[in-house]
Amino acid sequence: MSDLDKPEKTVYEKSLDLHANNRGKFKITSKVKVENNYDLSLAYTPGVAAACLAIKDNKEDAYKYTTKGNMIAVITDGSAVLGLGDIGPSAAMPVMEGKCILFKEFANVDALPLCIDTKETEEIIKTIKHIAPSFGGINLEDISAPRCFEIERRLQDELDIPVFHDDQHGTAIVTCAGLINAAKVVGKKMSDLNIIISGPGAAGISIAKLLLDFGVGNVVLVGRKGAVAKGEAWLNAEQVHMANITNKHNEKGHLQDIIKGKDVLIGVSGPNTVSEDMVKSMAKDSIVFAMANPTPEIMPDLAKKAGARVVATGRSDFPNQINNVLVFPGIFRGVLDARSKVITQSMKIEAAKAIASIIKDDELNEEFIIPSTFDKRVAPHVAQAVVKVAKQEGLSRI
Amino acid sequence: MSDLDKPEKTVYEKSLDLHANNRGKFKITSKVKVENNYDLSLAYTPGVAAACLAIKDNKEDAYKYTTKGNMIAVITDGSAVLGLGDIGPSAAMPVMEGKCILFKEFANVDALPLCIDTKETEEIIKTIKHIAPSFGGINLEDISAPRCFEIERRLQDELDIPVFHDDQHGTAIVTCAGLINAAKVVGKKMSDLNIIISGPGAAGISIAKLLLDFGVGNVVLVGRKGAVAKGEAWLNAEQVHMANITNKHNEKGHLQDIIKGKDVLIGVSGPNTVSEDMVKSMAKDSIVFAMANPTPEIMPDLAKKAGARVVATGRSDFPNQINNVLVFPGIFRGVLDARSKVITQSMKIEAAKAIASIIKDDELNEEFIIPSTFDKRVAPHVAQAVVKVAKQEGLSRI
Repeated sequence: MSDLDKPEKTVYEKSLDLHANNRGKFKITSKVKVENNYDLSLAYTPGVAAACLAIKDNKEDAYKYTTKGNMIAVITDGSAVLGLGDIGPSAAMPVMEGKCILFKEFANVDALPLCIDTKETEEIIKTIKHIAPSFGGINLEDISAPRCFEIERRLQDELDIPVFHDDQHGTAIVTCAGLINAAKVVGKKMSDLNIIISGPGAAGISIAKLLLDFGVGNVVLVGRKGAVAKGEAWLNAEQVHMANITNKHNEKGHLQDIIKGKDVLIGVSGPNTVSEDMVKSMAKDSIVFAMANPTPEIMPDLAKKAGARVVATGRSDFPNQINNVLVFPGIFRGVLDARSKVITQSMKIEAAKAIASIIKDDELNEEFIIPSTFDKRVAPHVAQAVVKVAKQEGLSRI
Repeated sequence: MSDLDKPEKTVYEKSLDLHANNRGKFKITSKVKVENNYDLSLAYTPGVAAACLAIKDNKEDAYKYTTKGNMIAVITDGSAVLGLGDIGPSAAMPVMEGKCILFKEFANVDALPLCIDTKETEEIIKTIKHIAPSFGGINLEDISAPRCFEIERRLQDELDIPVFHDDQHGTAIVTCAGLINAAKVVGKKMSDLNIIISGPGAAGISIAKLLLDFGVGNVVLVGRKGAVAKGEAWLNAEQVHMANITNKHNEKGHLQDIIKGKDVLIGVSGPNTVSEDMVKSMAKDSIVFAMANPTPEIMPDLAKKAGARVVATGRSDFPNQINNVLVFPGIFRGVLDARSKVITQSMKIEAAKAIASIIKDDELNEEFIIPSTFDKRVAPHVAQAVVKVAKQEGLSRI
């Protein structure tokens, strides 16, 4: 059988080839030359002592003389990787490397993958604190809930660089961006939207918080055991908190009950968990973001048939791809440029607005509520918005 | 005053400019393109899942599908940086970055700087173990003695990747290389050499161990409090061990006593600590390696005047520069190529021989016992020697 007769390789086979041929996806490149003793005397000894002593006297000078100001760590413990679950730190590397090259490609942020070989919350926190001096920011990735909440909170409290759990906030920001435009398309106000979120995990909770801070009408989180509502025994600590700030009317029941009459369904749960009948029971001109990957909660054609006016998914082969890639490069570009020590809710909201605003009103329609993943205008636009908020909030140190 | 009238900038000022203009000395570069959804489906989701699952099934596949196989971490706690001492992790970054670009320049090893914000031995060990999955090797750097001994030993015992404290072994290997050729020049056998090492710290101890394993005649370590000899009260644990394996005749006394009649002085101590009279008291055709930086134990012209036949220093502005740069890139290139889990004494000895052998017998003379730092033949030659030993010792996994 000649090569030409072979059946086309799958995306998985081609991806394995790509990884094997390149032995991973990034490399280190020197920004200065070291070709002779003169070069060496500046880049290394003895000249380098001047930069060391400057930083010893003033730690902020690390931003001036080292890579810190443009360098972030992309960190996981491999406990909740994509749809693969708890595959461990080594097996998570290909995803982290992928993330790192996206940071570089979209926003010229230098990002290094670090896969941590422990699942103990305290050990993860300590490890990241210990290696923090080399970095200008920390992007947490694919760490399972509820540990991810405490890890992020503690690190942001205890470090003086921005910490961002992308699975939570990246997803929340891009979802919010899509919803801003979807609401425009169907002619509803954000402040009037009655929203159900299927999947009360890290992403769902972060989406709920951001949408509430944005000012939507109502949000109800629903899981397999029912709605996140006051007094439910199955809630974890984070969900107890959510029960207090969401679900205005303390609705109880399951997905098929709560979805009735809702304007928006946001799915961050599992494949095929939403039926046509459920979508039919939603309010007129409903919006369905079915973001489970790779198989959505409901396929777009079925959701449309059942009456949804705007449908978005996480996939690139349908219209309206809700993809974090639109968020994380620009967010970190912004906080690094402003040298902000934190990423605030206002920055996230303005980032969402910035993404949404890329699509002009006359371009906007049911099939085009969110820019293409490869729209190179997005990351700089997000970064600008973040820098602007940092200045307004007195967090810019530039 | 115009720019042309300004006095020439010092190496320190020029180095600061270099660091500020480049904002650090390295960057991340993607090895694969991500310009459209097809690229993304291979480098990231969904294709990347194939590499993740392969590694989940067989951890060794990390060497095949990720950067691990060519990626090392250059790690310090900033406790013993160059001649600067305990300047802390942030201030150590410029040195670590410099080291990383030398790894790249000389041996195409991808190296990342990690500066650790703790000085607790156990915490350093745990932190490095936790981040190890991303790396194919660990280069420890500028960690003060005696902690550096335990940190290296424990990590090498507990990790399955090579761990190398360059301040110890890099220095030992290049010193041994220089000594092989210096002995040839003066017509003495290595096995006959009676050696004094001034400076019983990490570097001195590592040099002593390697020279003994090489088979030199005798080594005596001397510090400010005298010779490392059995029964001395001031010795630390590592020095007690050294008292048992060095100093054949249990010589006691100070530098000026012990140096009498010695064939070789190796200085890894402080500036101007060796007098002309001391060198005069050495054996005929003596060899002096005065490696304190930037000011040697004795200046080369004085050592020569006092009768030393071969003199080497750590400086590039004198002949015979004994510089670790000749060692660490090739050592790691070798163990990464062989995928050895350890760096053995035999590898170090063969690396020293490989460096020495670059200089042919007819080129060898008092002023040329060690190749130039920028001799591009050295690193591949060292790497080959290391791979060869790895195969002989059954440590190669390729």
